[in-house]
Amino acid sequence: MSHVPSRHPPPPLPTLHDIRAAHDRIRPHIHRTPVLTCAALDGLSGARLLFKAEPLQKGGAFKARGACNAVFSLDDVTAAGGVATQSSGNHGQALCYAAARRGIPATVVMPRTAPRSKRDAVLGYGGRVIACEPSNAARDATLTRVAAETGVAVVHPYNDVRVIAGQGTCAVELLQEAGSLDALVAPIGGGGLVSGCALALAALSPATAVYAAEPANADDAHRSLKAGRLISMDAPDTLADGLRASMRDLTWAVVSRHVRDILLVTEDAIVAAMALLWQRLKIVVEPSAAVPLAAILARPDLFAGRRVGVILTGGNVDLDALPWTRAAPEEVAS
Amino acid sequence: MSHVPSRHPPPPLPTLHDIRAAHDRIRPHIHRTPVLTCAALDGLSGARLLFKAEPLQKGGAFKARGACNAVFSLDDVTAAGGVATQSSGNHGQALCYAAARRGIPATVVMPRTAPRSKRDAVLGYGGRVIACEPSNAARDATLTRVAAETGVAVVHPYNDVRVIAGQGTCAVELLQEAGSLDALVAPIGGGGLVSGCALALAALSPATAVYAAEPANADDAHRSLKAGRLISMDAPDTLADGLRASMRDLTWAVVSRHVRDILLVTEDAIVAAMALLWQRLKIVVEPSAAVPLAAILARPDLFAGRRVGVILTGGNVDLDALPWTRAAPEEVAS
Repeated sequence: MSHVPSRHPPPPLPTLHDIRAAHDRIRPHIHRTPVLTCAALDGLSGARLLFKAEPLQKGGAFKARGACNAVFSLDDVTAAGGVATQSSGNHGQALCYAAARRGIPATVVMPRTAPRSKRDAVLGYGGRVIACEPSNAARDATLTRVAAETGVAVVHPYNDVRVIAGQGTCAVELLQEAGSLDALVAPIGGGGLVSGCALALAALSPATAVYAAEPANADDAHRSLKAGRLISMDAPDTLADGLRASMRDLTWAVVSRHVRDILLVTEDAIVAAMALLWQRLKIVVEPSAAVPLAAILARPDLFAGRRVGVILTGGNVDLDALPWTRAAPEEVAS
Repeated sequence: MSHVPSRHPPPPLPTLHDIRAAHDRIRPHIHRTPVLTCAALDGLSGARLLFKAEPLQKGGAFKARGACNAVFSLDDVTAAGGVATQSSGNHGQALCYAAARRGIPATVVMPRTAPRSKRDAVLGYGGRVIACEPSNAARDATLTRVAAETGVAVVHPYNDVRVIAGQGTCAVELLQEAGSLDALVAPIGGGGLVSGCALALAALSPATAVYAAEPANADDAHRSLKAGRLISMDAPDTLADGLRASMRDLTWAVVSRHVRDILLVTEDAIVAAMALLWQRLKIVVEPSAAVPLAAILARPDLFAGRRVGVILTGGNVDLDALPWTRAAPEEVAS
């Protein structure tokens, strides 16, 4: 009841109004992805699974939502200076896509060791690549320098209210299509997606339990929730390359309040769930996108008999290096 | 203007009324699959492509439509005797699915050399497998004998008005979602799908040009249309295993009247189009399903600048034997 301002005010988080505004803002630039069901996967899990198929999103991942919201939130003067980020993954491509839609330049700082395919993807969307040394510190420092020198607007991959609000539109659409949901499971890396979804559901469907699913090899979010304080991890070793980041203050503020639990899965379980999604749902998903299904299959105590929304996050994967590839060329069927 | 009956009356073909009745009949048993678009594939083709994603159909292929229509068209007495077919591919599985939905037995005659995965798929849907010698003649003879002995109702994979009408629902849904279409491209094997779609479009959108796409290695439909008479081909050698069948009288009657042209594609073009669909559309498609895109990319003279519907037929494929698999196990990224 005190009116004395706190020394550590909570960070300003997106509201449902922000998420709805994001939805209106990005609708012309994104696909409304389908919600898919699969009797075989329902049978395996004992649950009714409703998959939001974001691999079918622009750029092949949900990241187009947050990136478009950030880019189209900029005033004209700021926008004219362009945008920049330091993600070489799906967010980098999504930011270039969003910038191209607005007709402004985009710059992506990435380690000089990044695979050529990621460089090419950014260039393919008309983005500019700035190479740096392969460390998180060098990426941050390079991005800060570029921003200071050129005046570009930095759009962080997840610790940004505009990005979080944009990702929350994913849950709004899923809920509209699925009707009621007992639970929602999304993967967690930096936490932008699960934060946006948790905020949307807290307002629209507070009875829906929100879970995050995380590789056991990159369990910083799990440990953070257990410890009650933000724990980071540098360069964890997981096949789920989209989930190697750690939360920052904004996403931690949401996750610590609104996420019921963080479920860990093994690398083998990720590969098995990925193969199941390809075989049964017929959707190309990247390893990160298979983490929620792996978690659901491991925890019938939480999910059996319930209606469970699942965010399939993305489908950007190298078809020549699939984790289950075992056949040598001469063994391939003609 | 003569009223004298012809000595060779045209076979009774499905009407739009039959296709609409099929749609009402099968609606509770099938998915309404999404129509997907992809800016990258539009760019490559110069066309506006609207993909009907039947890999997301029940059983992973459009075949559930025709099989459900046939099974749910049976009167109760006939249905109680069960159904049978001799397709070891998607139709066999679809028939078992449809029979299971109706609670009646299904039998699939397949060569004793059929891959274990196909046997298991039929058994997985609760079907019964009868093995025969690996020849088309043996399959037909075995099915005829089984039908005579047991009284099961035979459901041919494509030369059946109920099946053709069911497959036509695919074009009805695509047209509802896509609005107008300048052209539609579907693959052709026995011709059930393209026949059903062509009949639907002839009634609903006569300005839409219907093309069939066919592997050059299995060009019996192409040669039939050129010769003006039905030409069959035994066991053609193509990766597109769903397209190895030849038309029969009903499908030939439709194709010869309603299909504008039959476009041939090479095996290499099929593999390239399949990889493009996985990479860009993020849908798992089997080789047969990639044949229309291969044809469209080869013929900008026909399709550039036009709105083109594309039926992606199915996604049942062995993930361990992908045609572009080149990496030996030790080269696979960890």
